[in-house]
Amino acid sequence: MRDKKTLFIVTSVVIVFLIAVGSVVFYYQNKELAEEVILPAIGEDEADPAVWGKYYPRHYDSYQKNLIVDTVEEYSKYGKYGGAFEKESHLDRYPYMKNLFAGYGFSVEYNEDRGHLYSVEDVRNITPVRQKAGAVCNTCKSAQIPSLIDKYGEDYYLMGFEEINDQLTHPIACLDCHDPKTMELRISRPALLEALKSIGKDPDKATRQEMRSLVCAQCHVEYYMQPETKKLTFPWAKGLKPDEMLEYYDNLNFSDWLHPDSGTSLLKAQHPDYELFVNSTHYAAGVSCADCHMPYVKEGNVKITSHWWTSPLKHMEQSCLVCHRESAEELRDRVFYTQDRTYEMKNLAGTTIEKAIQEIAKSAQTAGVNEEILDQARTLHRQAQWYWDWMAAENSMGFHNPQESLYILGKAVDCAHKAIEKAQEARTAER
Amino acid sequence: MRDKKTLFIVTSVVIVFLIAVGSVVFYYQNKELAEEVILPAIGEDEADPAVWGKYYPRHYDSYQKNLIVDTVEEYSKYGKYGGAFEKESHLDRYPYMKNLFAGYGFSVEYNEDRGHLYSVEDVRNITPVRQKAGAVCNTCKSAQIPSLIDKYGEDYYLMGFEEINDQLTHPIACLDCHDPKTMELRISRPALLEALKSIGKDPDKATRQEMRSLVCAQCHVEYYMQPETKKLTFPWAKGLKPDEMLEYYDNLNFSDWLHPDSGTSLLKAQHPDYELFVNSTHYAAGVSCADCHMPYVKEGNVKITSHWWTSPLKHMEQSCLVCHRESAEELRDRVFYTQDRTYEMKNLAGTTIEKAIQEIAKSAQTAGVNEEILDQARTLHRQAQWYWDWMAAENSMGFHNPQESLYILGKAVDCAHKAIEKAQEARTAER
Repeated sequence: MRDKKTLFIVTSVVIVFLIAVGSVVFYYQNKELAEEVILPAIGEDEADPAVWGKYYPRHYDSYQKNLIVDTVEEYSKYGKYGGAFEKESHLDRYPYMKNLFAGYGFSVEYNEDRGHLYSVEDVRNITPVRQKAGAVCNTCKSAQIPSLIDKYGEDYYLMGFEEINDQLTHPIACLDCHDPKTMELRISRPALLEALKSIGKDPDKATRQEMRSLVCAQCHVEYYMQPETKKLTFPWAKGLKPDEMLEYYDNLNFSDWLHPDSGTSLLKAQHPDYELFVNSTHYAAGVSCADCHMPYVKEGNVKITSHWWTSPLKHMEQSCLVCHRESAEELRDRVFYTQDRTYEMKNLAGTTIEKAIQEIAKSAQTAGVNEEILDQARTLHRQAQWYWDWMAAENSMGFHNPQESLYILGKAVDCAHKAIEKAQEARTAER
Repeated sequence: MRDKKTLFIVTSVVIVFLIAVGSVVFYYQNKELAEEVILPAIGEDEADPAVWGKYYPRHYDSYQKNLIVDTVEEYSKYGKYGGAFEKESHLDRYPYMKNLFAGYGFSVEYNEDRGHLYSVEDVRNITPVRQKAGAVCNTCKSAQIPSLIDKYGEDYYLMGFEEINDQLTHPIACLDCHDPKTMELRISRPALLEALKSIGKDPDKATRQEMRSLVCAQCHVEYYMQPETKKLTFPWAKGLKPDEMLEYYDNLNFSDWLHPDSGTSLLKAQHPDYELFVNSTHYAAGVSCADCHMPYVKEGNVKITSHWWTSPLKHMEQSCLVCHRESAEELRDRVFYTQDRTYEMKNLAGTTIEKAIQEIAKSAQTAGVNEEILDQARTLHRQAQWYWDWMAAENSMGFHNPQESLYILGKAVDCAHKAIEKAQEARTAER
């Protein structure tokens, strides 16, 4: 009996000890979760990331990595296209862009971005021509914007560029995506809330996984300013595909500028990263923007969500290898397989549009040209440039949706050639 | 002590019993393997699948399923494009093909195939115009061919269509891919062996997994007949991509026929399924043709390799769900996502080539046309049709390699338009 009693006591002590050790291990492995439960005293409108950083030092450290600006050489170790570069000019890299954007600010200056922490500084130093659009240019550049939109109401959109920019002291930061009380993901920009409603989606019913893409979709989307109110709006009401957006714009008779050589009313695509990603293979598999761009990373014995927004090619172990069983090098080759083809088709479309502009310009200067056919050429030029720019402006060189990317660029090539043919027909038809 | 002895005996009996039960289960689960080890008395040149079927009744039963011919309605339950149909004409489905193949047998008759078991019957009943190429047309149609090539040597290729076809009693069958002594996969067609050598690959060193694609690559490839010898040859020496093959043909000054309207020397693409599949995502992941098209299926308590060569969309559980965790319906949508885009681009390219032919024909009939520029238009027509036909002739509507498919079709669209523009320039340049 005595032996049994001793055994019982020893067993009980061992079990209690194991539970205690297990709890400690569980606590440390889930420290992020534990930390989030302690609600810190961050103000409702606190746009300064350093204040948030006091409570979330590891997240803040990863966020600070956004200050890294690659040299082209440095980036070439990871990727072939894109990256955060110092004043790397799209216009130097793709000389045809100067002609495609003639008459518009983007033909004067169009640089590769340096990343999210330089957003205020970079938009401030951009060529004044491109700041003409006004206050609205700042909308995605600072965590202070939601407060300023609250403050000025719809008048915000009608204000001057500097009226808003002069008030900005913080770039894109925590408050853009997080509720400071609960740390939950939150949409802070009205344009996305309204766009979701326009396609019948209730933003309040978004799952956490959907939110891990939607906070990015506040800015990484196509948008425009409504002509009268200058209000920032996403052209989603007819759908998220480029031809559906084009229909939307055509119905509004909307254009961003008139090309001085071809006389075509053109649209400038912003960066429709989210719209391209929707319906991709990765999206269909339930992957969010954050899964690849903000993977879970280990910081000592703690696991955090990385806030270094950069190419997943820089941290494929955390981004890709969580799901894929191939080696990073094999997967990198697959990325390049898509990107190489997209790059070639993008430049093919771009240079073909360049020729279309020349042909339309030539016809426009020809006496007795058939104006009706020439206008058909301009419509085709508008379509071609829209499809091309959708792919030129998105940030993955096709990887966000390989099939759709090559399909869109195929249409761009087709429309550009049809514009050339119509422009030529306009000259011969009058004879 | 007595208790211990009893325990030992009981434990031993249980272990022996478990081993026995396990062995029986293992035997039945691996019966296919067990069966293959018994070497049957199948003759070295036995082309009759029914003889093989006596030893492999389950494989033979699955092979017999190739007799199923879908109605379009039946097939539409599984897929949108392709299928094994009764006299379904490509020319009716894609009217532009009549113009693209004008002057060539494919403009007279070009039907969807009914599958491997009808190979001899279908090639026999094809329009005589298309049988003119001679004996060589039978090369992929019967398991008897390797013996006949052995018998006649290189003279085989110079014989008439009927000289060979009249001797054929069996369609594509076991002997085409298997060694009757060992059942091992084996390449029976000389053209593939020579093609592999031309790209520095030793067929004897192919892994089993490579063989599970290479036996298909005996026929599901692009090939041509050497002008003098009529010898069946794969144009692989410069690479397996369409532009590499085009360079190969251009260097030989080879063409299949002269288009009567445009005067262009054209190439007819066969079915480059293997070449398109090489370097696809599935291929890079180590998947073979057989993994999707010949999955392991359960027949009662036995697992066999299916020999029903059909669309994997008909048995996605066995083909796709072995690796993919999504539902069959979700995966089917992904297949259609690629196929819909490929189908649209394929038809866009096809109809643009149709216009190119008209424009070149018009210029050819114009007095004083610039012949040099007109020839450039013909070269572009040749390129466009080659790229288009590569994709029109392969059997997956782009699924074998989505990115490459849309890239190739983008190039087809581009070349077709450039042909149109050059043809027009040839007329205006002379004025």
